[in-house]
Amino acid sequence: MKTLGEIGEDALIRRLLDGMPVPQARGEGPGDDCAVWDAGGADLALLKTDVLVEGVHFFPGTAGREVGWKAVARVASDFAAMAGRPDRYLVTLALPAATPLCWVEELYAGMADCMRTHGGVLAGGETSAVPAGSAAVINVAATGRVARGRVVLRSTGRPGDGLWVSGWLGGSLAGRHLSFPPRLEEAAWLAEHFPPTAMMDLSDGLAVDLPRLAAASGCGYRLDRQRVPVRHGETLEAALGDGEDFELLFSQPAGRAEELAQAWRERFPETPLHEIGVLTPPGEGDDLAPPGGWRHFQGNA
Amino acid sequence: MKTLGEIGEDALIRRLLDGMPVPQARGEGPGDDCAVWDAGGADLALLKTDVLVEGVHFFPGTAGREVGWKAVARVASDFAAMAGRPDRYLVTLALPAATPLCWVEELYAGMADCMRTHGGVLAGGETSAVPAGSAAVINVAATGRVARGRVVLRSTGRPGDGLWVSGWLGGSLAGRHLSFPPRLEEAAWLAEHFPPTAMMDLSDGLAVDLPRLAAASGCGYRLDRQRVPVRHGETLEAALGDGEDFELLFSQPAGRAEELAQAWRERFPETPLHEIGVLTPPGEGDDLAPPGGWRHFQGNA
Repeated sequence: MKTLGEIGEDALIRRLLDGMPVPQARGEGPGDDCAVWDAGGADLALLKTDVLVEGVHFFPGTAGREVGWKAVARVASDFAAMAGRPDRYLVTLALPAATPLCWVEELYAGMADCMRTHGGVLAGGETSAVPAGSAAVINVAATGRVARGRVVLRSTGRPGDGLWVSGWLGGSLAGRHLSFPPRLEEAAWLAEHFPPTAMMDLSDGLAVDLPRLAAASGCGYRLDRQRVPVRHGETLEAALGDGEDFELLFSQPAGRAEELAQAWRERFPETPLHEIGVLTPPGEGDDLAPPGGWRHFQGNA
Repeated sequence: MKTLGEIGEDALIRRLLDGMPVPQARGEGPGDDCAVWDAGGADLALLKTDVLVEGVHFFPGTAGREVGWKAVARVASDFAAMAGRPDRYLVTLALPAATPLCWVEELYAGMADCMRTHGGVLAGGETSAVPAGSAAVINVAATGRVARGRVVLRSTGRPGDGLWVSGWLGGSLAGRHLSFPPRLEEAAWLAEHFPPTAMMDLSDGLAVDLPRLAAASGCGYRLDRQRVPVRHGETLEAALGDGEDFELLFSQPAGRAEELAQAWRERFPETPLHEIGVLTPPGEGDDLAPPGGWRHFQGNA
């Protein structure tokens, strides 16, 4: 009898989607950072659900305020990945009855902080006890929106496009995974001035997420390891494999690299931007997949 | 140090909402079966998140297919409570790595069954491992819709309105809590032909939910215990307190009782409808709250 640990997350998702009723319109099904929904208005609707599990995404001793920030910021980061903005949040708490009330109040204070800073409001929620000894589970679902012509998918990169990444990568577990800023402004600015051909946020590590973007776009990729923006004090392995960077990875037609780099520096002087490689025709390029990155149900490879 | 078990669900929610950024428009905030969102289209959007926890909402031995049906049907039932329909589902799985793959496939087959029968599609999801020994948690978030003039809130009942309930109550744990039909057709028919003044679905038991509907409407209530539709073989206590009936509770202006009862019988001959009491001015009427009903973090009172 096969278990989830044996099959792993990506294969699980492929198997589960087989036979499910899914949206018929192209680009509206599962597989991107968010679901996109064309409900006929001026904006496209974005839908996202995301979960934090005690012992996986945070530790029992982590401050509630930090967990709350992270729970909301992760979802906002997925809206950023589509060049969108958050609108309405729904929060589900599944917590042991012995959870201290003050921890839960801090959790909500952290969520409120992130909503006030980056937009969106709490529209509803659900609470349930979990059996004593079970891990706390916090689920955040949300709707967002993006102007019809501005949405950026992860599946529309083209061979020859340059690959870019914002910020520094690696070592997130030292604290940044709890306090990172979702790149909403940066993504909206890109979509307006330098529309990416494809984009996603880095949640599982470049070594896992870059192959995902390339595969979704029907491309290969070549990574210039010397240009990966390794966070000060971290290793290249950490930058490729730690995960939870929540930076933007995007592709960009060749030819405007200088112009993009300079305009970004002026607009976002505190956040670096690096060109780290190129999308290639399928079957060419590198193969990063084996060495690292976070695999749900399997742990760090 | 206070814990969630000491404060209980309703007080917890009141405390957590204090100070949160919430929607400004009247009727769009938390507190009803779904969040309502007026995004400017012909229909109002409905948003809902709901969670199933192993050991609380289903047992470790429960068939995946039944758990999947229940996970989707509970959310559909909340859309029915607003006279709406489901559109897009987002499913989050937080499961131990040792979970058998076939159980998860059955879970999705049950969700697909319910979507095909009652509408809506899977637009996306998220999966995560939970630590070994932790309970499985399945979260379903969804968007729905309801025509602008047809939405029914739980807060708009008026003193003198009759109180009605669909189906039979009590004994859901014997199996119906896993296979119930969400009352989407019934609710849409009511909203068209006999618009309820207030409506909700019965998830925590009439003894808990009826006081909630009355309080949300700023009313008291009087319950005619002899008219409560007790399921065959069950007791009045079970009908009031078991919970998970997922039937419609609604209020209706007096004067059309005969007409409603007859039209319902013709349209839904297999589902009973009973008038069980009346909304009263606040401070008058009965007080059901203490004896029964499911309390999260506190168990059955």
